Amino acid sequence: MITTTNPRTGDTIDTDIAATAPEQVAELAQAADAAFPTLAANGRVWRAGLLDALAQALEDDREALVETADAETGLGPVRLNGELTRSVFQFRMFADALREGGYLEATIDHAGTSPMGPVPDVRRMLLPIGPVGVFGASNFPFAFSVAGGDTASALAAGCPVLLKAHSSHPLTSKRSFEALSGAAEQYGAPAGTLGIVYGTKAGAALVADPRIKAVGFTGSLSGGQALLDIINNRDEPIPFYGELSSLNPLIITEGAANARPDEIAQGLFASFTGSAGQLCTKPGVAFVPKSEHGHQIVEKIAQQVREAKAVPLLNGRITNSFGLIRQRLVDEGKAEIVATGVSDGAGIGVAPSVLTIDADRMTPEVTEEAFGPLIVVAYYDDLGEVEEGLGHIPKSLTATIHSEDQEAEAVSHLAERVKDRAGRLVFNGYPTGVRVSWAQHHGGPWPATNSQHTSVGVTAVRRFLRPFVWQDAPEALLPEELRDGYTAVPRRVDGVLQLAGESADA
Amino acid sequence: MITTTNPRTGDTIDTDIAATAPEQVAELAQAADAAFPTLAANGRVWRAGLLDALAQALEDDREALVETADAETGLGPVRLNGELTRSVFQFRMFADALREGGYLEATIDHAGTSPMGPVPDVRRMLLPIGPVGVFGASNFPFAFSVAGGDTASALAAGCPVLLKAHSSHPLTSKRSFEALSGAAEQYGAPAGTLGIVYGTKAGAALVADPRIKAVGFTGSLSGGQALLDIINNRDEPIPFYGELSSLNPLIITEGAANARPDEIAQGLFASFTGSAGQLCTKPGVAFVPKSEHGHQIVEKIAQQVREAKAVPLLNGRITNSFGLIRQRLVDEGKAEIVATGVSDGAGIGVAPSVLTIDADRMTPEVTEEAFGPLIVVAYYDDLGEVEEGLGHIPKSLTATIHSEDQEAEAVSHLAERVKDRAGRLVFNGYPTGVRVSWAQHHGGPWPATNSQHTSVGVTAVRRFLRPFVWQDAPEALLPEELRDGYTAVPRRVDGVLQLAGESADA
Repeated sequence: MITTTNPRTGDTIDTDIAATAPEQVAELAQAADAAFPTLAANGRVWRAGLLDALAQALEDDREALVETADAETGLGPVRLNGELTRSVFQFRMFADALREGGYLEATIDHAGTSPMGPVPDVRRMLLPIGPVGVFGASNFPFAFSVAGGDTASALAAGCPVLLKAHSSHPLTSKRSFEALSGAAEQYGAPAGTLGIVYGTKAGAALVADPRIKAVGFTGSLSGGQALLDIINNRDEPIPFYGELSSLNPLIITEGAANARPDEIAQGLFASFTGSAGQLCTKPGVAFVPKSEHGHQIVEKIAQQVREAKAVPLLNGRITNSFGLIRQRLVDEGKAEIVATGVSDGAGIGVAPSVLTIDADRMTPEVTEEAFGPLIVVAYYDDLGEVEEGLGHIPKSLTATIHSEDQEAEAVSHLAERVKDRAGRLVFNGYPTGVRVSWAQHHGGPWPATNSQHTSVGVTAVRRFLRPFVWQDAPEALLPEELRDGYTAVPRRVDGVLQLAGESADA
Repeated sequence: MITTTNPRTGDTIDTDIAATAPEQVAELAQAADAAFPTLAANGRVWRAGLLDALAQALEDDREALVETADAETGLGPVRLNGELTRSVFQFRMFADALREGGYLEATIDHAGTSPMGPVPDVRRMLLPIGPVGVFGASNFPFAFSVAGGDTASALAAGCPVLLKAHSSHPLTSKRSFEALSGAAEQYGAPAGTLGIVYGTKAGAALVADPRIKAVGFTGSLSGGQALLDIINNRDEPIPFYGELSSLNPLIITEGAANARPDEIAQGLFASFTGSAGQLCTKPGVAFVPKSEHGHQIVEKIAQQVREAKAVPLLNGRITNSFGLIRQRLVDEGKAEIVATGVSDGAGIGVAPSVLTIDADRMTPEVTEEAFGPLIVVAYYDDLGEVEEGLGHIPKSLTATIHSEDQEAEAVSHLAERVKDRAGRLVFNGYPTGVRVSWAQHHGGPWPATNSQHTSVGVTAVRRFLRPFVWQDAPEALLPEELRDGYTAVPRRVDGVLQLAGESADA
């Protein structure tokens, strides 16, 4: 049976869960494949109801889910209740998007003539890609795990989901799965709409299974690369949506340091220590001016760090890796420790740390992602040094600039340079606390993610869809959204975008 | 110096073109990378003008381009003039799409509150991905080569294009490149907007170059796999858009065979022999009922085949491969030859062939793609046998059903089965002659393509874009399309889609 760890005490937690055997994985993939046509055919409004039912099931089991997750992750009830609220919100958001229907990209070109001669009637719409494998993440037992955004967006698309539970929270995974799959069954979803597997080998078998048509993963760069290797050896390559590694550089201009040193010191401390620094959007490196106010900001962060207690990390592997990276930075003289928090030796906790370097000593090694409450401050002389330093930091999910109005020209230049190195550019705020909405993009150039798609926000659904075209089809064989009289979704007709409720001759 | 072949005579054509050395490839990639920020920053309306100028340059050089291509490909002036018209049309279509602006997916979520607390202002838009490598195809010296849709869509996105000329038509590639790059320079596009390389090694170096951020390829499955291997060994994986191999099954129901045997025999003959059968959408296998009318259709096709003259294929490799596959089918008793055209022994030509099998003997070997004028007719007893047979055919770009109204129920069932095996479903027509328009999708499940995107039609531009989000950005730093007052493009604001010209409170 699988075991896990209570991060607060370091004690082993026994479970009644067995690792899933490869032949069971194959059976579950088969069940997902069998469920696929029904799930797809039931249509988007039916699926919106399914997602609402799943949201409600999570809400109804809130107390037990949070308690279970707290024991396995040590993240605490405030954070976990907030995260569960986000999970519930995500299912409902995709339900809204399904009812709105714009995600279908319904497009109709009527028959006619072109410079190349007569042309047929073609009608395009996005269809679900097939069963999807979803890997739960360690750091979000709800919002990026069994009840997470990958699950919600894949189901929204019409794809059955076969989950790989994260080894750090098997009991939370199981309980989440039971809540979701129970509600799905009650709603009338076909058996195989949701499945779950446990164990590393089962995860590998899942990715290799020919019935799986896409994989969503949030985790380490090495974990993602291992899955990518499996995919590269499949007969049929499939899209791999990995959200992997991110340093999230944050730049404080001279003007910002002068104008709001206290505010920035508090905000930055909260951002890199929140959730024990285990957020993919944690700012891992901050460029601070080598000036009186710059040093003042760092000293104020250091004060908070010195008073901060050790916090449990999610599992022993993360704790070990965090310790190793921190040690390498210090022992090899790459960075200097300015302040460390109070270690109490309990569980698998670590104390927050703030380290400093000179921006002109920035290398990829200095900026290895330390998954935990650690920030490297890079002191700079001028923004040219910042631009140079940014070039040594692996591309990230986010970049952040704190500045003042009078610096607009320099900031504009900096923003241009940053744009190719991140997926989201934050002004005068913090990259943690990712808004879940229509416009959000949570992705970035490699190694942040390897895709042109997002894992947060409504457009995450596009990852699990493929275009399909009907040419000169009899109306009865078209999906209703592509029939001439239908107006309940936005469509592009003969090149002209139309809102829902409009018709061609409106 | 590179040489090529006149397919009509088999004679070698000398050129003054040298294979590109790896260090030259690196220089060209560097130039593309240097051009990228300007090309992106100049904006969509400027780029629309660039595309129009490129279209005009092709039109202005039409006579010489067609003459050059005819000597290298033997496709004939009618087909080549039509194809060049398509190339010109494609550049102009993307210019229209740029001016319309919907492709940006501009999305604004204003700051507010959510169940998770206060949320920032986030604004999303698609940005160009970076320099793109484009491989010309053998079978479309214009529309899928230097002046092709990949080039047009990548430039539309704002990406510099580094081309790999196809070895079958280096002179056409060079002349096309000169027309396009001359017009680009005259328009004021930055140096490096377009580049070209020659030779297999240069192509490999191009795909491996870290400055290249996506690759578009139309060609063989083996060629695509070789490029995919290079990509899998890059430090940074990049999207590979390969349009590879397709059998394009066509099904003729009993009803259709009874109602229009002559029409179908003529249409199908034209479809599989047009352009010497060297179209990615050529129907390679046709399911025909084992009935009087079914046999009548095949006999009518056979008659046309017997009278047809040999046609030159594009190059010696294609001719050899065609001959080998045809021979394997016949020698190993997999299929029977019903009719073959008239061989005259000139050049590298082949005569059209029609072969037959029983549908219940369908295997993947029987349906290996023969790139040339060959069709395998599979005789079936009932539609169940067709469905079974379809499962043995690799997934394709297209599938086609010829049927009559009274068969609606059976056809609906068949259409559902076909949907997962193709990207476009054609009714009572032929898959060749791909319409270039907003709704088109030219892609399919692997091995037809390996992507969820199209290489034909307006949405082809999405392949070369990536989302980017500005959070709480000062208005001056936002692209104009994301500023509050801007209304010239369709946008989604706070979840509500708005047409161009509308504002939030309209």
